Amino acid sequence: MNEVFTSLKQRNSLELEKWLETLGHPDLSLVQAMKYSLLSEGKRVRPFLVYATGQILGSAVEDLDTAAAAIECIHTYSLIHDDLPAMDDDDLRRGHPTCHMQFDEATAILAGDALQTLAFTILSEGKLSPKAEKNRIKMVQVLANASGARGMCLGQALDLNAEGKSVSLNQLEAIHVNKTGELIKAAVKLGALSCGSLDDVTATHLDRYAEAIGLAFQVQDDILDLVSDTDTLGKPQGSDIKANKSTYPSLLGLKGSQTKAQNLLEDALRSLDSIPHETQILEDFARYVIERKK
Amino acid sequence: MNEVFTSLKQRNSLELEKWLETLGHPDLSLVQAMKYSLLSEGKRVRPFLVYATGQILGSAVEDLDTAAAAIECIHTYSLIHDDLPAMDDDDLRRGHPTCHMQFDEATAILAGDALQTLAFTILSEGKLSPKAEKNRIKMVQVLANASGARGMCLGQALDLNAEGKSVSLNQLEAIHVNKTGELIKAAVKLGALSCGSLDDVTATHLDRYAEAIGLAFQVQDDILDLVSDTDTLGKPQGSDIKANKSTYPSLLGLKGSQTKAQNLLEDALRSLDSIPHETQILEDFARYVIERKK
Repeated sequence: MNEVFTSLKQRNSLELEKWLETLGHPDLSLVQAMKYSLLSEGKRVRPFLVYATGQILGSAVEDLDTAAAAIECIHTYSLIHDDLPAMDDDDLRRGHPTCHMQFDEATAILAGDALQTLAFTILSEGKLSPKAEKNRIKMVQVLANASGARGMCLGQALDLNAEGKSVSLNQLEAIHVNKTGELIKAAVKLGALSCGSLDDVTATHLDRYAEAIGLAFQVQDDILDLVSDTDTLGKPQGSDIKANKSTYPSLLGLKGSQTKAQNLLEDALRSLDSIPHETQILEDFARYVIERKK
Repeated sequence: MNEVFTSLKQRNSLELEKWLETLGHPDLSLVQAMKYSLLSEGKRVRPFLVYATGQILGSAVEDLDTAAAAIECIHTYSLIHDDLPAMDDDDLRRGHPTCHMQFDEATAILAGDALQTLAFTILSEGKLSPKAEKNRIKMVQVLANASGARGMCLGQALDLNAEGKSVSLNQLEAIHVNKTGELIKAAVKLGALSCGSLDDVTATHLDRYAEAIGLAFQVQDDILDLVSDTDTLGKPQGSDIKANKSTYPSLLGLKGSQTKAQNLLEDALRSLDSIPHETQILEDFARYVIERKK
């Protein structure tokens, strides 16, 4: 698992570097800030899901580079903007200064903006296989819907609204389903769309798989914020408690959260069982989601 | 001219309202902020250029709604982010409090982000005529390239870098060609792409027309900042001088700037002369650009 993960991460980095080079202006702080955040030591969960889904459905890895690069641009832009002083006001991300600390606020805002745009440049210009070409506009649609006020931005808005208030488990779930879940689902969908056509049964089970691991990812994030340490996390441990944020452990307790993560893993694995393809890599990934230490 | 302008503006507003409604969550500050900025009293120059270009090339007005709505979302997002405290720090826009003054900074950042995404949702989902459908992905490409680090964001980055420095006329032109010029060109291109195919000669001359009026628009903006008043402009008059910004009048003088605007108008009109279509509406618009008082 780790080996495949690392190799796909490197592949994604090379693809992203190639796109950054097409922008020119390597000395401009805007381009440097885009590069700084995009090529930092992220987990690259979304590109991995594009590659893994595409590969179990029979796509060649080179036909998945475009979608994998595009979705990582969206994810990175969202991190840059979420870290801004007016938003979560975080100084540290992945063990390094956040974009606005390394550069300045104006550059960070602009770098986030331009990374969002770059995602759509990549999806509209990037190489696709002939069978994926007919899905290109559908891919733009999936990525846009998952990212904007119907998905990730909605989740961030709900999250900001919930700050300092006590929220119910349903409300917490609505935040995460939108804030992180939609983009995780989009990654799996983009992987599938890169393969051309897909039967409805597989599409539905892939969707359920993505839903379960998207939520499990967040539950595990909340658990790690409680039980891990700052060095391992690369960001301050205990920041949720400090920010008085509602989390799964604050609503369900640590044990209840671990049970929830385990149940979500089982949901994910059940969905994979119904897919008539070799899904080992997605199974391994689902286990990684709730076993990871950072 | 004014009547056509007003009627297309209303048409564009109705289309934008329709898209905002598809987002749901009308009580959420994110959606309210998007609506506040999107439906404010803007000039709607870019939607107008989509409609005008499409119409002179024979498109029905209803086949242009999608591209016109998408490009206004990009323009509005850029205004919201440019006004932020970390950027130009403006309190007033179009005679009303800027988005972050009316709501708060976090909401303004997020509303800008989600408006950018909405542009791509609109382009990927919106109604197009059958002959325009085959250009849909090209439209995404044109809009993305004009908006991001190859266009508008690059211009804003160059502008931020130039703050407090004296810049040459060439540098000033590079800022504006990217910051406003590329999106004006994209508007004309989107209008043309909405019509299906286009001969190369017309495409080239439309491009030159758009380049000339894009620059003329900025020259006139700089002139108005010097000679108009705050009430007419809807934003503080003299803000360029206050911010110690290099402008056309600061480099060429008032008279030199007026001559430059006049020359650009003549360039624009010459380009229209070479187009084998009835181009009166684009001619009227070019005159409006340098004769407008706000």
